[in-house]
Amino acid sequence: MTISDLGEFGLIEAIAAGLPRGDRTIVGIGDDAAVLAAPDGRVVATTDLLIEGRHFRRDWSGPADIGAKAAAQNLADVAAMGANPVALLVGFAAPGDVAVAWARDLVAGLAEECARAGATVVGGDTSSADAVVLAITALGDLSGRDAVTRSGARPGDVLAYAGVLGESAAGLALLEAGLAEPAPLIAAHRRPAPRYAAGPEAAALGATAMIDVSDGLLADAGHLARASGVQIDIGTARLPEHPGMAAAAGALGRDAVLDWMLTGGEDHALAATFPPGRALPSHWRVIGQVSAGQGVLVDGNQMTGRAGWKHFGD
Amino acid sequence: MTISDLGEFGLIEAIAAGLPRGDRTIVGIGDDAAVLAAPDGRVVATTDLLIEGRHFRRDWSGPADIGAKAAAQNLADVAAMGANPVALLVGFAAPGDVAVAWARDLVAGLAEECARAGATVVGGDTSSADAVVLAITALGDLSGRDAVTRSGARPGDVLAYAGVLGESAAGLALLEAGLAEPAPLIAAHRRPAPRYAAGPEAAALGATAMIDVSDGLLADAGHLARASGVQIDIGTARLPEHPGMAAAAGALGRDAVLDWMLTGGEDHALAATFPPGRALPSHWRVIGQVSAGQGVLVDGNQMTGRAGWKHFGD
Repeated sequence: MTISDLGEFGLIEAIAAGLPRGDRTIVGIGDDAAVLAAPDGRVVATTDLLIEGRHFRRDWSGPADIGAKAAAQNLADVAAMGANPVALLVGFAAPGDVAVAWARDLVAGLAEECARAGATVVGGDTSSADAVVLAITALGDLSGRDAVTRSGARPGDVLAYAGVLGESAAGLALLEAGLAEPAPLIAAHRRPAPRYAAGPEAAALGATAMIDVSDGLLADAGHLARASGVQIDIGTARLPEHPGMAAAAGALGRDAVLDWMLTGGEDHALAATFPPGRALPSHWRVIGQVSAGQGVLVDGNQMTGRAGWKHFGD
Repeated sequence: MTISDLGEFGLIEAIAAGLPRGDRTIVGIGDDAAVLAAPDGRVVATTDLLIEGRHFRRDWSGPADIGAKAAAQNLADVAAMGANPVALLVGFAAPGDVAVAWARDLVAGLAEECARAGATVVGGDTSSADAVVLAITALGDLSGRDAVTRSGARPGDVLAYAGVLGESAAGLALLEAGLAEPAPLIAAHRRPAPRYAAGPEAAALGATAMIDVSDGLLADAGHLARASGVQIDIGTARLPEHPGMAAAAGALGRDAVLDWMLTGGEDHALAATFPPGRALPSHWRVIGQVSAGQGVLVDGNQMTGRAGWKHFGD
């Protein structure tokens, strides 16, 4: 059965039937709007638009992975403010010939990723369109903490990250080359697994600035540096060994590991700055140093964005 | 200059520069997520996806009208819960050859409609796409009142509406016929003007159920009836005279006024049920009666949705 067979209201009912109701939900799916408890007295809100062919491909990823990934990138933005994700609103548009089962699996993937983050789907909208479009809004709760913005990094702070770097980019390179191994990297591209709890944890540990790594570490460290008015120097020797990425680079015949780690987006690691000397859990890995100045350095060398790094890496 | 000349970050900066910052905004545009004050301890949230060619046409509406209308339909959903609109998040995708001025005008229209409703744009996302896509999320504040859902109508209540009915449908019919008069109806189609304040007002007046009329009065009264488990009888003699719509119907050579009023969507009137005998301001016009049973009647006659009405109207 296709989406157009079912119609808009039928599709919404089919989707809503499979979704759990969160304990913060006062009014859920099916009214003009959702109503959520916000006991903190503030709400964190972020939105992303994902377009088929630009942000995902139906022939490279199944619907559950597409849904999970779309949820992940928004939930990670909430975590990057130091907040706990609470709710997702989902706009979904698709050609009428898309199977209802495909749409239902996509929503199941959204719901699975929400469950990983402690959130639920509370509302949405459906439409027809020539390509699949996903518009995701995530809401979150600061639980009394200050939000951690991009602008609080200070000279003397350290830069650390939690999660993985470059795996999604490596997986994409494998897919582009028609390779299926190493499978964990393909999986990391199809469905990133951000460490949502590391966001509120970083806030509690006194993080001075934080960002979701979605454009690549260099670019996103650059966003932190610019917003905070500081310079950030990343030490490549402090990045972890990654045998899987080394194997992928070997299979592709190019020395790409450092490029993936520094410029690959979509893993949704969290990068944060902390005051000097702060004891951090081992999953927050210190990889850089904040100082007076501007821009991002790699091992003390000036970069000029991704292109600069690419040149530098040759 | 086109959007692709400017690039994503340039476009966001160009858009953000023209937007006011609301007094509820703790963290605004430019971070991973926005942070808003929610002093009520709850937040109302709704999302809509608008696709070029399905929800609007660039050759029939200018960018400011498209933006204002997209904002209106979401802000009206917030008002229909009895809440005051506070904030909008905007996902915007467009072909790269769209002029930056067009995008800026669209955002100006969004901001104008937000200002009418007392809200501000607090965040968003941009992307490229083959057609213009707008994904709008509106957030609102209940100021201590209970949310007014669709499910509280009781036998004995009256049905009333605030705003206009059918003007947008009349304007669309004129555009489809290539007519430009009566101009106020064309304008009503291009840019509806919901009475946002009537939503919280209805909540304060004890409205038992409420809905944003977006699918047409019959369909949306049907949603109220189904959610509340009641029957609603609409009296056509209680609908207002409308000389402009009569003139439009005359120009089109068909007896369409009642059809527009009963089945036209997109005006975003608010329809609400109130306990019997409740004194209502004159802009809340009583047009129907709630009783035990199910479905929607027109002048005591059974309808079966829009198709049924159409048949009935022949």
